[in-house]
Amino acid sequence: MKAVTIREAGGPEVLEWTEVEDPTPGAGEVVVDVVASALNRADVMQRMGLYPVPEGASPYPGLEVSGRVSALGAGVSGWRVGDEVCALLTGGGYAQKVAVPAGQLLPIPAGIGLAEAAVLPEAVATVWSNIGMTARLREGETLLVHGGVGGVGSMAVQIAKALNARVVTTVGSPEKAARARELGADLTVNHRTRDFTEYGPYDVILDVVGGQYLERNIRSLATDGRLVVIGLQNGLEGNLNLAELVFRRLSVHGTTLRTRSTTEKAAIVAASREHVWPMIENGSVRLVIDRTLPMAEAAEAHRLLEAGQHVGKILLVNEE
Amino acid sequence: MKAVTIREAGGPEVLEWTEVEDPTPGAGEVVVDVVASALNRADVMQRMGLYPVPEGASPYPGLEVSGRVSALGAGVSGWRVGDEVCALLTGGGYAQKVAVPAGQLLPIPAGIGLAEAAVLPEAVATVWSNIGMTARLREGETLLVHGGVGGVGSMAVQIAKALNARVVTTVGSPEKAARARELGADLTVNHRTRDFTEYGPYDVILDVVGGQYLERNIRSLATDGRLVVIGLQNGLEGNLNLAELVFRRLSVHGTTLRTRSTTEKAAIVAASREHVWPMIENGSVRLVIDRTLPMAEAAEAHRLLEAGQHVGKILLVNEE
Repeated sequence: MKAVTIREAGGPEVLEWTEVEDPTPGAGEVVVDVVASALNRADVMQRMGLYPVPEGASPYPGLEVSGRVSALGAGVSGWRVGDEVCALLTGGGYAQKVAVPAGQLLPIPAGIGLAEAAVLPEAVATVWSNIGMTARLREGETLLVHGGVGGVGSMAVQIAKALNARVVTTVGSPEKAARARELGADLTVNHRTRDFTEYGPYDVILDVVGGQYLERNIRSLATDGRLVVIGLQNGLEGNLNLAELVFRRLSVHGTTLRTRSTTEKAAIVAASREHVWPMIENGSVRLVIDRTLPMAEAAEAHRLLEAGQHVGKILLVNEE
Repeated sequence: MKAVTIREAGGPEVLEWTEVEDPTPGAGEVVVDVVASALNRADVMQRMGLYPVPEGASPYPGLEVSGRVSALGAGVSGWRVGDEVCALLTGGGYAQKVAVPAGQLLPIPAGIGLAEAAVLPEAVATVWSNIGMTARLREGETLLVHGGVGGVGSMAVQIAKALNARVVTTVGSPEKAARARELGADLTVNHRTRDFTEYGPYDVILDVVGGQYLERNIRSLATDGRLVVIGLQNGLEGNLNLAELVFRRLSVHGTTLRTRSTTEKAAIVAASREHVWPMIENGSVRLVIDRTLPMAEAAEAHRLLEAGQHVGKILLVNEE
């Protein structure tokens, strides 16, 4: 098969569409013939050599795919060859085939195209594991999402609205503000001209910025508020005011999806299917796809992601 | 009635045993004729003017009592005049009578004396709400308790052992190390001569130190570890390494009991009764009482607490 390989740590040009060995399914795994994959920021980090590939994972980038089951490993039940699926991966999605533990497979939601479904697993699992499972966002609470029109942000805004929460999101331009409001955001704050702390307090904050925002995030949390940090785009550390934590009973959580065990991933995928798949099927959560490129043009796709002008996900498709 | 009043912010000498107005039970409250109260570090903070009394709370110190129900407010069911009880308070325990929401009452555990039971409510509710409810300490996990022979620490060590966790505790002397091991600690670390980070990783850390320990606490947490800060004895803030949080999926929680709503306190008291009362009644959790003084000698009791040589709780009793 062919896959996108990383020649060496570097810019988008190190991504090469190369002939490699086919994957074989281990016990409990299936092989999926990939129709499409989608980009995540972690792919860029991996390409730059800043995100070590977890032990045992495919060395090729790509954390999610859609496609058709083409082979079953020992002990797999509930799935058959030919099933149309999407899947959460620990790597290897930018390829023609990928092996994945069966617990990370999801059916294609009713009404969604097979290729398009590739944008769902990582964003849905990330958002549900963080705002549903870790932060337990409840009806009537206010969620602040930093970057409400990216792949994860656009999903977070919609899922939070489907939970009947109030949603505030930071954006970088009036155009992105308009898109965030279309997705359901109750209020948008342009972080280039306004301070998000003035629009709180927030019960839950989903943050991808990290150190630079830590003090302001904490300051703008409501009593019993929860800050969930899932990205470190600007600063690996910051000053933490523990007095605010103690007296307002706040919590700070850091999470990643990729390094979790197969068992934990399966639990998150099952919860995502239970809670979010119905939101997609009834139309309350829509897919937001910025554009679609051939898998062989992964380098160009990375350039677009890094330019930061996209809204929603960037999709990579294999030629039929 | 008489109560210990705080003449002005200051040292132990500002505590005065004074004639004050009797409390009356509001709706949903009972009045308890106080047999005993017990000291908590928050009482010292309050005396020093560093812990604002929550709105609506008694101005007198004392976060827990035992005694007999002497009056019922409107709408109270499940308790009768004459019942022997202990109670979690928002203040006012250093007195002959105190009014308390009925949801914060607990029965005296079988086998425990009425006066002695005054040492239970605050320590049990603090430990259970933090290691049981917030951190969800599980069988087989390792808990680090900073200060394992204080009022809260000695309860935390015993409850964690009753949950079949492994318990490590920091102490300040060989004598305290011996006492902590008697309480069930698997390992003690003298913080004057050793670095607790060398004995990790820990799944849960219960911390009363705050800023000074923040970086070391985070560094010594296991993957999926939880740091719960309930005191700030040394430093209100510290540097937080968010990269460690994200990549090891850690969380930091700050909590206080006193500022919680009546509803939340009732839920914590109910959970404490369900989970910890049986541990006390079957002898797996024992009361640790350093000494008993008359209520009128609260000033001397505060001096003893601040000297830091005590093991377990300091009890204040009313004369019969």
